[in-house]
Amino acid sequence: MSLPGPVWLAPMAGEAACAPLVAAVCEAGGMGWLGGAYMTPQSLAAAVDAIRALTDRPFGVNLFCPQTWRRDADREASFLAALRPFHEALGLPRPALPERFEEPFDGQLAALRERRVAYLGFTFGDPGATLVAALHADGAQVVGTATNVPEARQLAASGCDALIAQGAEAGAHRGSFLGPRDAGLMGTLALVPQVVDAVPVPVVAAGGIADARGAAAARALGASAVAAGTAFLLADECPLAPAYKAALARAQGHDTVLTNAFSGRWARGLGNRFTRTMAPLAARDALPDFPIPNALTRPLRQAAGRAGDTDCLALWAGQSVALARAAPAAQIVRRLAAGWGS
Amino acid sequence: MSLPGPVWLAPMAGEAACAPLVAAVCEAGGMGWLGGAYMTPQSLAAAVDAIRALTDRPFGVNLFCPQTWRRDADREASFLAALRPFHEALGLPRPALPERFEEPFDGQLAALRERRVAYLGFTFGDPGATLVAALHADGAQVVGTATNVPEARQLAASGCDALIAQGAEAGAHRGSFLGPRDAGLMGTLALVPQVVDAVPVPVVAAGGIADARGAAAARALGASAVAAGTAFLLADECPLAPAYKAALARAQGHDTVLTNAFSGRWARGLGNRFTRTMAPLAARDALPDFPIPNALTRPLRQAAGRAGDTDCLALWAGQSVALARAAPAAQIVRRLAAGWGS
Repeated sequence: MSLPGPVWLAPMAGEAACAPLVAAVCEAGGMGWLGGAYMTPQSLAAAVDAIRALTDRPFGVNLFCPQTWRRDADREASFLAALRPFHEALGLPRPALPERFEEPFDGQLAALRERRVAYLGFTFGDPGATLVAALHADGAQVVGTATNVPEARQLAASGCDALIAQGAEAGAHRGSFLGPRDAGLMGTLALVPQVVDAVPVPVVAAGGIADARGAAAARALGASAVAAGTAFLLADECPLAPAYKAALARAQGHDTVLTNAFSGRWARGLGNRFTRTMAPLAARDALPDFPIPNALTRPLRQAAGRAGDTDCLALWAGQSVALARAAPAAQIVRRLAAGWGS
Repeated sequence: MSLPGPVWLAPMAGEAACAPLVAAVCEAGGMGWLGGAYMTPQSLAAAVDAIRALTDRPFGVNLFCPQTWRRDADREASFLAALRPFHEALGLPRPALPERFEEPFDGQLAALRERRVAYLGFTFGDPGATLVAALHADGAQVVGTATNVPEARQLAASGCDALIAQGAEAGAHRGSFLGPRDAGLMGTLALVPQVVDAVPVPVVAAGGIADARGAAAARALGASAVAAGTAFLLADECPLAPAYKAALARAQGHDTVLTNAFSGRWARGLGNRFTRTMAPLAARDALPDFPIPNALTRPLRQAAGRAGDTDCLALWAGQSVALARAAPAAQIVRRLAAGWGS
């Protein structure tokens, strides 16, 4: 794979996903990635067009692989009961189950193929050899996400052209798809060389990398590029709510926690009242499967964002949060690239 | 502080603590550390003498700071009940509470001061400014262990001459002493630069470093030296039980888990039947305080070691376990030093 790089914007789904940030990273000589997982096919196509209007350089789009999940009335009832006080505090109607849960993958993928996006990334699983071959036939390149060596081997066997090795330091969702939670929580420093030794494709280091030192360390570990998300959360082009940015600017690295209470899958963010309140449900493994909590918490997250209430927002951030700086994205790219080149 | 190094043997308390390994690392140009936490004052003095008989080079000894802990009859009864089937399987008498729990710190410290050990290290807490000043007056240098920035600041304020920054990848006990468990689980790649930025003393990177790549990465992150434990577990001089070494040689990085069931404090090792059986007690925070489980599991661990039964051994190991190689310790020192120098 010819890897644009060495500095990648890690794909960030949700509030941080926007064309101006992706394009700014590309224009600064990095590789922008759009986190498209929560977008409709229509909004995804529009975002691709918006990126292309801002830059001629290569960029990628990342999707969440479809998950197997099951309904469980008891878990849903417990979770709805736990959500109720948060809804009351924000003046929202009682939380309720939607009529159906979205399974957007097929439509998203079709929109990206129709737009001939050159780099496609996948998280939460293995796209599989059949899909990878089809994307190769389209002329696209495919990037998988691994959190341990068995995942890396499987993704390489499916034909992925490069892998993101996502260390436990990383912010937001863990990409893990094989084994128990702990098996997907290797630190970047331990993970990257073991993945490099295990697969024949380029490995992109992610997790904890937010300045020149982290980029230099990743290169020393054998990575072919670095993917940084948290480093860009305070970028001028990143459209996070001001209250979220203010919380990030105050945070130290040890303020992040792993929680599965926002979406049903484990993710890293700043601890807040929501994560603390839900921790007992998580500890006894009593939450509904992804994506049920993600759908059920959406009204709360949206209202909290409008109200600037960081107690109920998903404040995704990695353990390098204290190294993030408010600056134009181009400056952040240059800061990371300086470490790679040194 | 004039730091011997750049390659330190991480202090490993318990079965791996032995004079020949410490001395071999020193003779190869590294800095050996003896994990003295579980030794009596008499055995500690004998080990210091044994190291000195093998090498004239500097070495250090590490102790566990005294812990506050309380008795809890319900927790002890639950834990004893959970231990019973393991005792039965190994033909041991029913597990029972000892007449008293050892608090060896004062005697250990006196033995080391009497022997004029030049480098003293502390884990699980802050030795405090008074003790650090007394050790300085002895002519000794003091190394603290931090797992996040607040711990690092406190240790530096107490006068520590250098700090080990222990990332979440590290094997065996977490040194954390401030905040909840998650606040002490920063990955090495995120932790080291943040500690380097926060304190004016040299920082030694620990966690996930087992070959030249890890050492080079630690240097890029701003560390003044590296401490490696897992890298030396298969060293010829390391006296672990053959069954333990065989389990390490088969392990992959994602096979380690965090457990507090062996000692009452969180530690990383290979998952086995004991860690899985005890996980529910740990998940509902129902274990007795350290060092009660440590005392209660000692007969089981000793019998399992004699029987070569890895189901009940504490198989401490870090996430770099797949990078460890069976070799003379001197060769492992050279492998790490090659990365530092490159």
